[in-house]
Amino acid sequence: MIELYLEDLHVGDRFESNTVSVTENEIIAFAWAFDPQPFHLDAEAAKQSVFGGLVASGWHTAAMTMKLFVTGGLRLAGGSVGLGVDELRWPRPVRPGDTLRLQTEIIEIRPSRSKPDRGIIRIRNITTNQKGEVVQTFFASVLVRRRTADKIPL
Amino acid sequence: MIELYLEDLHVGDRFESNTVSVTENEIIAFAWAFDPQPFHLDAEAAKQSVFGGLVASGWHTAAMTMKLFVTGGLRLAGGSVGLGVDELRWPRPVRPGDTLRLQTEIIEIRPSRSKPDRGIIRIRNITTNQKGEVVQTFFASVLVRRRTADKIPL
Repeated sequence: MIELYLEDLHVGDRFESNTVSVTENEIIAFAWAFDPQPFHLDAEAAKQSVFGGLVASGWHTAAMTMKLFVTGGLRLAGGSVGLGVDELRWPRPVRPGDTLRLQTEIIEIRPSRSKPDRGIIRIRNITTNQKGEVVQTFFASVLVRRRTADKIPL
Repeated sequence: MIELYLEDLHVGDRFESNTVSVTENEIIAFAWAFDPQPFHLDAEAAKQSVFGGLVASGWHTAAMTMKLFVTGGLRLAGGSVGLGVDELRWPRPVRPGDTLRLQTEIIEIRPSRSKPDRGIIRIRNITTNQKGEVVQTFFASVLVRRRTADKIPL
């Protein structure tokens, strides 16, 4: 896998991910650790909730999306260091058995004015399920190395 | 623990959380599952990174913050259903042994115009470490039940 530098990237570039599937047990395990609410923990209790059944924590969806991002097509030299996330939305919940896929698009590229070894890209991440329905969207700013600064650790 | 409804909440209300500590093993386990990058996986490799040592994935910090939120003072009737998150930032990384705490403030309350059984609150969440340093901030919109609609499942 080739590692990408700022000079390799262009506004409008799109990157596809692999897929990840999630089981009921994984949804429940994540919820016990991080989001212990009935609609994430218990299929029976979840039927009485606004979701009508067990759903993954939005933070679980976000974490699975990060796995898709890190293992997807946009492999950045030195790794993916996120500076911030905006407009994180979950238009549909993720349910047991769903298979997720991520599409990433570069929407802005900004070389650093003060630090010649780096820049920042702004990306849009859209996570869909096996039906093509959108389950999560967000924008993120990510630190990217410049090739000219290959020897500076990032 | 009393469950809170829209009528119980006021702009400016603040809620404190318990604390949660994170170990090196937990940071590494989360990273293998969701963010497998050297600076989250391997203390030695992380020394060469921009972080200078092992740090938790930002999504791990977000997930731990959700645990603090759900188990904290703002217990909403029917549970915490997040509609969206804005301006998620990680001004400092979380490192092994850190102990996190969350402060939540209500900054806006909006009863639904179309649905009399609910409203939306906007909150600011600030996660700090044991030194009082801010490790994460964001704004979130959260669905809240109105007391008048007690019998409608949320």
